[in-house]
Amino acid sequence: MADHKIDDILNRLDSDLPQALDRLLAFLRIPSISTDPAHDSDVSDAANWLADELRSLGFTAEVRETTGHPMVVASTPQGTERSLLFYGHYDVQPVDPLNLWDDPPFEPAIQDTPEGRVIRGRGASDDKGQLMTFVEACRAWKAVHGELPSGLTLLFEGEEESGSPSLIPFLEANRDELSQSLALICDTGLAADGRPAISSQLRGLVGEEIIVQAANQDLHSGSFGGLAANPIQILCNALAALKDENGRVTLPGFYDGVEELSDQLRSDWEALNFDAGEFLSRVGLKNPIGEKGRSPLEMLWNQPTAEINGITGGYTGDGFKTVLPAEARAKVSFRLTGTQDPEKIRAAFREHIQRFIPDDCSVRFHEHGGSPAAVMDTSDPAFDVAKQALSEEWGQEAVFIGMGGSIPIAGDFKQILGMDTMLIGFAKESDRIHSPNEKYDVESFVKGARSWARIIAALR
Amino acid sequence: MADHKIDDILNRLDSDLPQALDRLLAFLRIPSISTDPAHDSDVSDAANWLADELRSLGFTAEVRETTGHPMVVASTPQGTERSLLFYGHYDVQPVDPLNLWDDPPFEPAIQDTPEGRVIRGRGASDDKGQLMTFVEACRAWKAVHGELPSGLTLLFEGEEESGSPSLIPFLEANRDELSQSLALICDTGLAADGRPAISSQLRGLVGEEIIVQAANQDLHSGSFGGLAANPIQILCNALAALKDENGRVTLPGFYDGVEELSDQLRSDWEALNFDAGEFLSRVGLKNPIGEKGRSPLEMLWNQPTAEINGITGGYTGDGFKTVLPAEARAKVSFRLTGTQDPEKIRAAFREHIQRFIPDDCSVRFHEHGGSPAAVMDTSDPAFDVAKQALSEEWGQEAVFIGMGGSIPIAGDFKQILGMDTMLIGFAKESDRIHSPNEKYDVESFVKGARSWARIIAALR
Repeated sequence: MADHKIDDILNRLDSDLPQALDRLLAFLRIPSISTDPAHDSDVSDAANWLADELRSLGFTAEVRETTGHPMVVASTPQGTERSLLFYGHYDVQPVDPLNLWDDPPFEPAIQDTPEGRVIRGRGASDDKGQLMTFVEACRAWKAVHGELPSGLTLLFEGEEESGSPSLIPFLEANRDELSQSLALICDTGLAADGRPAISSQLRGLVGEEIIVQAANQDLHSGSFGGLAANPIQILCNALAALKDENGRVTLPGFYDGVEELSDQLRSDWEALNFDAGEFLSRVGLKNPIGEKGRSPLEMLWNQPTAEINGITGGYTGDGFKTVLPAEARAKVSFRLTGTQDPEKIRAAFREHIQRFIPDDCSVRFHEHGGSPAAVMDTSDPAFDVAKQALSEEWGQEAVFIGMGGSIPIAGDFKQILGMDTMLIGFAKESDRIHSPNEKYDVESFVKGARSWARIIAALR
Repeated sequence: MADHKIDDILNRLDSDLPQALDRLLAFLRIPSISTDPAHDSDVSDAANWLADELRSLGFTAEVRETTGHPMVVASTPQGTERSLLFYGHYDVQPVDPLNLWDDPPFEPAIQDTPEGRVIRGRGASDDKGQLMTFVEACRAWKAVHGELPSGLTLLFEGEEESGSPSLIPFLEANRDELSQSLALICDTGLAADGRPAISSQLRGLVGEEIIVQAANQDLHSGSFGGLAANPIQILCNALAALKDENGRVTLPGFYDGVEELSDQLRSDWEALNFDAGEFLSRVGLKNPIGEKGRSPLEMLWNQPTAEINGITGGYTGDGFKTVLPAEARAKVSFRLTGTQDPEKIRAAFREHIQRFIPDDCSVRFHEHGGSPAAVMDTSDPAFDVAKQALSEEWGQEAVFIGMGGSIPIAGDFKQILGMDTMLIGFAKESDRIHSPNEKYDVESFVKGARSWARIIAALR
């Protein structure tokens, strides 16, 4: 394996850091919230910013329209080496509750904190900061070699935070262009103890919105209370019955396909010395919930969940209103593992809710995405090559870990494009992704870019 | 009993109707939402409008400041007859959801509908339209007699829809001025079949707001789901356990003081031929809920309730956000009957909720009013005199009924001022009070004013 002037590239990344941070801050200033239609044009702006950036670097880059937000596709000429598809997303989560941000979420800044220098702002970690580590690695490569690495295709999505409705049709319509030897996704994190990691299993996700409708209008609880159905009560009853007293989800067949940990992963994960109490204490909690007899990492990575992500009904403003509301709503999601079937779980959930609806009330369901868990085949030698490159950059042994979050695209790459995926990312659990005051460590950004340079070199 | 030129007064009310409606519309245009601090100055405007109106009629009238919204107090010189205190409230309920109003809530209008002419707008029925029936009766009396009826004191409150925090201190501070022979309250309705009615028992109310706090920040359900407590789930579990499978409230001691119906009231209420199915069908429902074996009117008037009036937590906007929120909130109220003790019930509720809170989470409670049920002594002969006056005006026998709603002031009048109260009102169940498109029938307004003229005459 040639060294591809790797030291020069790493030096170049180090010396170019101030400019690289400026580029990232410019990108973060675009409020590309994909889930909120009010931000549609911002999402487009982010796509265009990214395509312009890639073209200026020498990529062939296009913004491709979809029925939703556009895709950005960029590539370099084919070479003789293993071809790679790199994926990231340029959309970001909503920012509410806005009052909990110390600074405006779309006025990003580099801040010195007791834990080191950080890039603060919505999307700093998830996923703009992460995807730019790869772009910056390419830029440094070009500065040293005079041209970009060959055999690269880059795919950037703008709907990752809103269920990726356009992704599967886009992959299907562009199968030849996007099918490469291996996919790389940069939307994951370091191990809890800071070691570099390749995520080898990710939980899937089923999202459902429920709207329980009782009366055809809001009622006065003085006039109707005791006689008329209360949709909030119905919703609470149904959602309370989702789990039993041991924390097990009660939906029939829910655990079909959940697999016990292999001995290898069990001992790998034990070696991470994950301290659940310490992990939870960072967010003001201390007691792990969930099924009795399972380890905390098993609960986070290898066990499914049922979570209520949002609920609303009746009067929620200041003061009090003795209303019996006409409707109540909830958003519920399930994290899936092993071979759990999203559509079977969606159906079982709807059946469960339906059992609680009196015959003069009704319920509507809205589907918000569904994808199975993704479990990678780590016997591909590329995994070991990348693991070694990561170990060199970070000065400690890289590990295979699980992921509690869902990156459904890894499964889609396998099913539609026939590619395996290496999930490598540099986020930390302290990054507050999806929360106020999101940040990305400058160290993650720098070593992330250096890691990609090493991996690109090692894979050719 | 002299007739006090009652026919002249009734004729005057009929001929003055267009002007009376114009006055009411002007009053309804003031958005005096007491529960919303943004409307504080509107609430003051409504108080001033009312005091000006009363002064122009010849009342001694004042706007009296409190620590909350002001009271309007007006009076006529003392006479030899039984003195009367008339009570109403000039504040109104919030208007959300605004999108369900056919017309702006504070642009009231007289509308012809298939069910007759109605006054449409927030407060038309509850309680501006109702209180103006009494004011218009006084105006017509003056037009005929040249002076107002003597021995009247009028008290108008601006915090009825927000728990009346200033009322008890105000009654205590003005005991001599406000203590009269008998109180009249116009904030109730006709019987379900349209017969005139005197409400002889009203349910009390306990309001509570609960805030369940889990993590100190919103969490990503991918990173924390399965390990970290979900405050929405905790809240749903606690609220679902408020009632058993028979619809009985599970709080220990909750039913202490609830009294079975007297044989007299049971047969009176049966005679009303209340059709629960028809009643519910008007709001799109059909099945009475609540305890098995109780009649619908018993459930509405003589049985207590536990109702969730509002709930919110997590992401509730468009799309989906896989968040584990830091907190979840609910507003819960209890309607009380008999001698149920509001503070014992509040304490039992808080204890119930507390049982569901894990020891790394917390809960805060906000009190929103508490008042016992009010049960009147109908052996006072004024009740029969008023009943007869109502029967004459409406051409059908007036009845004693119960009220599902809470008018805590009736209990306060008894406890603080030593007065009994006659609750007489002309609202209909179809008035949509507290809901979008509130209305008051022009018939209620006209016959209401004529009823008060007859009652004032009959009580002297």
